[in-house]
Amino acid sequence: MGEPVAFLLSTPEMSAIFSPSAQVAGMLTFESALARVQGRLGMIPTTSAEAIAEKCDVELFDVGAIYEEAERAGSPVIPLVKRLIELVPGEAKRYVHWGTTSQDAMDSALMLQIRSGLSLIVDGLNRVSSRCAELARRHQGTVMAGRTLLQHAVPITFGLRAARWMAMTERRVETLLELRQRALAVQLGGAAGTLAAFGQGGAEPAISEDRGLRVMEELAEELDLPAPLLPWHAERDRVGEIAGQLGVVAGSMAKIAGDIVLLSQTEIAEACEAGDPGRGGSSAMPQKRNPVDAVRALAAARLAVGEVGVVLSAMAQAHERGAGDWQSEWSAVPDLFRHTACAVDAAGGSLLGLDVDSKRMAQNLGRTRGLIMAESLTMALASSLGRPEAQRIVGDLCRRVEESDASLAEAAKRDARVTERLTDEQIGLALDPAAYLGS
Amino acid sequence: MGEPVAFLLSTPEMSAIFSPSAQVAGMLTFESALARVQGRLGMIPTTSAEAIAEKCDVELFDVGAIYEEAERAGSPVIPLVKRLIELVPGEAKRYVHWGTTSQDAMDSALMLQIRSGLSLIVDGLNRVSSRCAELARRHQGTVMAGRTLLQHAVPITFGLRAARWMAMTERRVETLLELRQRALAVQLGGAAGTLAAFGQGGAEPAISEDRGLRVMEELAEELDLPAPLLPWHAERDRVGEIAGQLGVVAGSMAKIAGDIVLLSQTEIAEACEAGDPGRGGSSAMPQKRNPVDAVRALAAARLAVGEVGVVLSAMAQAHERGAGDWQSEWSAVPDLFRHTACAVDAAGGSLLGLDVDSKRMAQNLGRTRGLIMAESLTMALASSLGRPEAQRIVGDLCRRVEESDASLAEAAKRDARVTERLTDEQIGLALDPAAYLGS
Amino acid sequence: MGEPVAFLLSTPEMSAIFSPSAQVAGMLTFESALARVQGRLGMIPTTSAEAIAEKCDVELFDVGAIYEEAERAGSPVIPLVKRLIELVPGEAKRYVHWGTTSQDAMDSALMLQIRSGLSLIVDGLNRVSSRCAELARRHQGTVMAGRTLLQHAVPITFGLRAARWMAMTERRVETLLELRQRALAVQLGGAAGTLAAFGQGGAEPAISEDRGLRVMEELAEELDLPAPLLPWHAERDRVGEIAGQLGVVAGSMAKIAGDIVLLSQTEIAEACEAGDPGRGGSSAMPQKRNPVDAVRALAAARLAVGEVGVVLSAMAQAHERGAGDWQSEWSAVPDLFRHTACAVDAAGGSLLGLDVDSKRMAQNLGRTRGLIMAESLTMALASSLGRPEAQRIVGDLCRRVEESDASLAEAAKRDARVTERLTDEQIGLALDPAAYLGS
Amino acid sequence: MGEPVAFLLSTPEMSAIFSPSAQVAGMLTFESALARVQGRLGMIPTTSAEAIAEKCDVELFDVGAIYEEAERAGSPVIPLVKRLIELVPGEAKRYVHWGTTSQDAMDSALMLQIRSGLSLIVDGLNRVSSRCAELARRHQGTVMAGRTLLQHAVPITFGLRAARWMAMTERRVETLLELRQRALAVQLGGAAGTLAAFGQGGAEPAISEDRGLRVMEELAEELDLPAPLLPWHAERDRVGEIAGQLGVVAGSMAKIAGDIVLLSQTEIAEACEAGDPGRGGSSAMPQKRNPVDAVRALAAARLAVGEVGVVLSAMAQAHERGAGDWQSEWSAVPDLFRHTACAVDAAGGSLLGLDVDSKRMAQNLGRTRGLIMAESLTMALASSLGRPEAQRIVGDLCRRVEESDASLAEAAKRDARVTERLTDEQIGLALDPAAYLGS
Repeated sequence: MGEPVAFLLSTPEMSAIFSPSAQVAGMLTFESALARVQGRLGMIPTTSAEAIAEKCDVELFDVGAIYEEAERAGSPVIPLVKRLIELVPGEAKRYVHWGTTSQDAMDSALMLQIRSGLSLIVDGLNRVSSRCAELARRHQGTVMAGRTLLQHAVPITFGLRAARWMAMTERRVETLLELRQRALAVQLGGAAGTLAAFGQGGAEPAISEDRGLRVMEELAEELDLPAPLLPWHAERDRVGEIAGQLGVVAGSMAKIAGDIVLLSQTEIAEACEAGDPGRGGSSAMPQKRNPVDAVRALAAARLAVGEVGVVLSAMAQAHERGAGDWQSEWSAVPDLFRHTACAVDAAGGSLLGLDVDSKRMAQNLGRTRGLIMAESLTMALASSLGRPEAQRIVGDLCRRVEESDASLAEAAKRDARVTERLTDEQIGLALDPAAYLGS
Repeated sequence: MGEPVAFLLSTPEMSAIFSPSAQVAGMLTFESALARVQGRLGMIPTTSAEAIAEKCDVELFDVGAIYEEAERAGSPVIPLVKRLIELVPGEAKRYVHWGTTSQDAMDSALMLQIRSGLSLIVDGLNRVSSRCAELARRHQGTVMAGRTLLQHAVPITFGLRAARWMAMTERRVETLLELRQRALAVQLGGAAGTLAAFGQGGAEPAISEDRGLRVMEELAEELDLPAPLLPWHAERDRVGEIAGQLGVVAGSMAKIAGDIVLLSQTEIAEACEAGDPGRGGSSAMPQKRNPVDAVRALAAARLAVGEVGVVLSAMAQAHERGAGDWQSEWSAVPDLFRHTACAVDAAGGSLLGLDVDSKRMAQNLGRTRGLIMAESLTMALASSLGRPEAQRIVGDLCRRVEESDASLAEAAKRDARVTERLTDEQIGLALDPAAYLGS
Repeated sequence: MGEPVAFLLSTPEMSAIFSPSAQVAGMLTFESALARVQGRLGMIPTTSAEAIAEKCDVELFDVGAIYEEAERAGSPVIPLVKRLIELVPGEAKRYVHWGTTSQDAMDSALMLQIRSGLSLIVDGLNRVSSRCAELARRHQGTVMAGRTLLQHAVPITFGLRAARWMAMTERRVETLLELRQRALAVQLGGAAGTLAAFGQGGAEPAISEDRGLRVMEELAEELDLPAPLLPWHAERDRVGEIAGQLGVVAGSMAKIAGDIVLLSQTEIAEACEAGDPGRGGSSAMPQKRNPVDAVRALAAARLAVGEVGVVLSAMAQAHERGAGDWQSEWSAVPDLFRHTACAVDAAGGSLLGLDVDSKRMAQNLGRTRGLIMAESLTMALASSLGRPEAQRIVGDLCRRVEESDASLAEAAKRDARVTERLTDEQIGLALDPAAYLGS
Repeated sequence: MGEPVAFLLSTPEMSAIFSPSAQVAGMLTFESALARVQGRLGMIPTTSAEAIAEKCDVELFDVGAIYEEAERAGSPVIPLVKRLIELVPGEAKRYVHWGTTSQDAMDSALMLQIRSGLSLIVDGLNRVSSRCAELARRHQGTVMAGRTLLQHAVPITFGLRAARWMAMTERRVETLLELRQRALAVQLGGAAGTLAAFGQGGAEPAISEDRGLRVMEELAEELDLPAPLLPWHAERDRVGEIAGQLGVVAGSMAKIAGDIVLLSQTEIAEACEAGDPGRGGSSAMPQKRNPVDAVRALAAARLAVGEVGVVLSAMAQAHERGAGDWQSEWSAVPDLFRHTACAVDAAGGSLLGLDVDSKRMAQNLGRTRGLIMAESLTMALASSLGRPEAQRIVGDLCRRVEESDASLAEAAKRDARVTERLTDEQIGLALDPAAYLGS
């Protein structure tokens, strides 16, 4: 029956990529590619290589049984290889998993999964980014309150807000694309990362010294993964770097989602997720329309960040293969991808058809009777009075507004220190949010 | 097909307690108990209460479908209640989920799951503790090297080591038992924690002011959970405290497992997990016997600690119900229980039949030719020379031992500064590990 | 000049408790108490014991120099003991640090610091709690919008909110008091936790077997710390538990602070930190009054939670003393206390003189034209129609309100499905927030 | 007196870069550069610009007092600007902090500190890498036991181990260099990131629309930081990415340090940190030489990883400036740099003059009487028997070795299944560690 609760904070696509079946399939892809390469290089008979490759088909394996046995064995590779040997006929049995080790298979499979996972996330980020772009375009003239520490600060446009979301998202895409080039790598080293077993034996007599490296390079090509300078069984900086970058992606989505949740508050009501039947309702309160997707993005992002800590704290892996730290990656890395994908997907869902209420934005902006334009008025006065003196005067006006029903405009027009320096028109201009939007 | 990889770092029992079915069952237990209480208090017709309670049977629900719908709805309660209403006949439909809210059902179900989960962990810890006790008894005379910073320090007994493991584990049991008293609580508050909806309506006219509290108390009794002073929807210190304590349990298991991994090293070889077919082998290296359970405990403990951070960082839940932080608990709390249970189970497995090699312990102790007794010799000299001077002399002797083939005993017997103060017999006594074991 | 930036997220009192001087003072308290106990038990001459105790005065030590040397030495105890030996006259030099080890001194000093630190935090929590109590009392009739997922849900009182904060804070106090009983302990074991060195030497000939335990008990009494069953150098569950509980305290303060930040939003403006000159202003915006203390509490709480993860992840300390994990506590535990104290202090500061605007609460409540009473109306209808049908009808009314200028009361009074079952008076009662406050 | 305990896990150089004085200096560099740019662009009088720039000298500021006031004010910028205005003469006072906001100053200063901090870390990594390179070169023929799960696996060379450390370190350098290009950026946006205030006022009448952007570009050039597309006050992905990468650096150093600690164990003793007086001794045990630097690296790395979690979890910063999350960066980012620098420095210190005992490596390798060559013998047999059958035979031989005093060579030469396929010479070759080192 599985784990649908976890599913709630994943996406079906990412769950598929990091499913047990997919891991088994990845390891079989590795075993098959390795056999083909070894066959081609004359290390094992080509007929055996073909026989092995033919059986490297996940449909022939009982995935559940493999993982059950994995618990006793300490890794899923041992039962997998055992089963593969059973499947492979005759002499070819001999050449299954030839010269390699569990971690080669698991890490190479992981890298294949990571490659797919990163693509999925990049696609999701591109959707987020284009929705932000659309909002930025549509709302480049929609004035709203800029808020610092959740207080009105100065006016901005919603377009600017969306553009900043977009710029952040695009930076994340760029980084992930670049990461895909740098951090991915095939794993091949044999039991202790020496490629030693690839020098031994073989169907042909002449053995070149560099055969191990040759296998690694051809395997890398076969799997379409970069070939590393050296095996990296216990040097997990690649995995750490991927984890860190996913954490940044998740945090970036949390920024967007958090803003939407705040803008959706009943009293602010400047944005609202697109409602459709069954979505975002409440079991008790018929009037509610909750920002369900934004909430989901926030929850998923928090979970993703938790996994980053696990992966980074597990980097001090002992000698040639860690004891406990590597194994914690088996759960943390898939969860990290699942939760990050969910955060991206949910942020995208929240943005899709986001209902932005520009009228309400204008109302909220006006709610402080011009106080939000205090900085602008300060700057207007500052050119003749200097910033410190201007700030003192505007501070007085603000207190007056707070203690009365007057607007800042009214208070300003009644204060001689202002009217000596600015005409009514100048005051009006200084207090017009739309005129104070900066670059 | 499920998530067997996650399973690898859980236990079947704990996975069952935190399975989706179990969550649905828990929520149905809540709905059923609530209906019965409301029936008894005359808030809803008793026939309706009975009709509802009868349908609160997880077998009547398609758990998978509920969680699928949950993603759109934002919580599994909405589809669950919808389905329950479908199942309940006639007039009773009206009284399903009467006056309560999603979070009441989810939090109460969570507390039921936590109660079961804590019991399971306490049982596991008791097994760990009794295995440590057995080792402490059996090895109270087994002298081994005490090690600080992984260097030989002074001799200890393996019995002392095991006794310290046991004392730590027993402290954890005590704390969890005490926690079960204090941190558990039923949740009942209605949509914003006011119990308001329990005052309204009802089949009987007379409505007491305190009816909400009365319902809460009777519900608590029905579910055998403590009744809180107030609802705690967004005050998550209970959950935070449980999380913190599980993290400490996990960390304690990691201590034991880490020691076993270190003692199992080829060069030290003082302990070895019980081998049985298929366990702890290597896919490439036929000679290896890996400490599989200890490794599993370390991996699971690391994952558990990661979840603690998620739960604690999610405590600032807004107003009456959090947006994103509460929801992150849905994944983090079950994972925390799963991983902690795995750490406890695996540490217990590692201890069960642990093969302790006391001969090897003695050999390792002797390997430094008496250097490990340096502190003891210092103390013997210190009574006449004072600690600083004694330390200087013994430091000289140690360097001499390191630079030659001599033992510390030989070096001491050749140094006038020592022989002036200690007879050969006294030197021998000072350098006998078994005589220097302290309390 | 120090680290005032860190100071910003601490309190002066807690910074003093965990200052280097205080650590040195704590270690000297340990050395002095140990010497006195050993003198009393006849293990060292009483005159030496007195001479040592006399020099255990932090004023005689150059704290800065000790920590500079500590870096090379790996711990501050080595230079501290060296300096103490220099200070102590004649024969007494011999008995300095007699039979003990660095970690005994550091852990015992830590426990003294923790004891003071916990008291400080308990005091701070008591202040928070009494301020919450005062708010709960004063505002037990102040109706406000209860909010779930930051959306209006049903009405509550601000008194209820404050009472829930208070109940949470009181739970934290209770837990810390109880923790002080259980988790504190003196540390005494000698180099590998065997108390071995206490059996050796001594000024008197007769040596009892249990002398080590006797020393531990008397030392515990001398320092007013519980005596543990066994030394716990590498069993860090005590420290882990303290860390976890501080994390829960920090998270609880973040809950309160987070609520205040949200209530202080310009559009909500239901609460405002007490303003005084120089507090919470903005360098650019003269009109702003920021919830400075609440923000500080949130920042500090987040930092505290980060340290909890460090402490828990460091629990697998090898053998008799950890290599790297124990040492990470040296920074993480003080920081955890500093940040938690700051969170408590700042939450208390935020609550002190918190300006609660009950008029504004009523206005905000009314802002949705009765929609917030939808659950109440549903329940009123539910007694005759059942919850599902009532929910459907009220859902229709809510949509009508959203699409028009009508209030929910008006919409209800115009809908025959309602008026057939409820009189206008009943509708009015169902829609009166003050009448729907529950228990 | 400061915080020398924290210092213990930092370096003096990094502590200086992130000291309060340095932060003040950085903010003054920002204010001075801004004034100069504004003077150049005719927004403020050039004489005022010069007058301001002249006073932007940290020596003129009481840093301690600024941070004391910062606590009340919520940020150090407010007291800093106040003091700067006091210092600046006459009319120029007016143009101090012209059109900018606190966060512009703090973030730009942060980026200057980060730039210096990254350089320091890159330098440190280069030292680590060149020491690894030297070890790799010197020990390319030094055969040692490769270990997986801390068990002997197959032989490797210490040169390979060091080369893998080096490759990892070099990958980190590359990434940091690349990061310096991408993630750094000046911050300039005014109170809500609109650059609005730069359009207002000015000494010259003609105001171009894009003046804000112009200021940003010139300021970027002045500070030698990249100009961002848009301000990024609340889009913290840059900071998150830097944090993540530092976490990976710290984790990488922990890998190296962890290996050294393990190799330094008394029973393994294959490596030992260079000893010099006062370093790595024990307060109780004169014979010990602790891997002090490696321990320090591990402790610092763990602390660094904790800070990464804080920074990533703080990314959802509200609207235009976060409340509590941004502020937690103030402590977390400096601590992250301090701890990472310490980890790099300490790893470098541990490697410097690392005493590698190649004789001991050979002895340890031989300790299992050839069992470590089991894989090699398997592969030698596998070419004629296939891997599965070969593995079975070698498994038998291994058990025989374990149960007797025989070596694997002796056991192999006595087993007909082997001798039928391999000559004694071939067996010898297959069991020679030096011949089985792979690529």
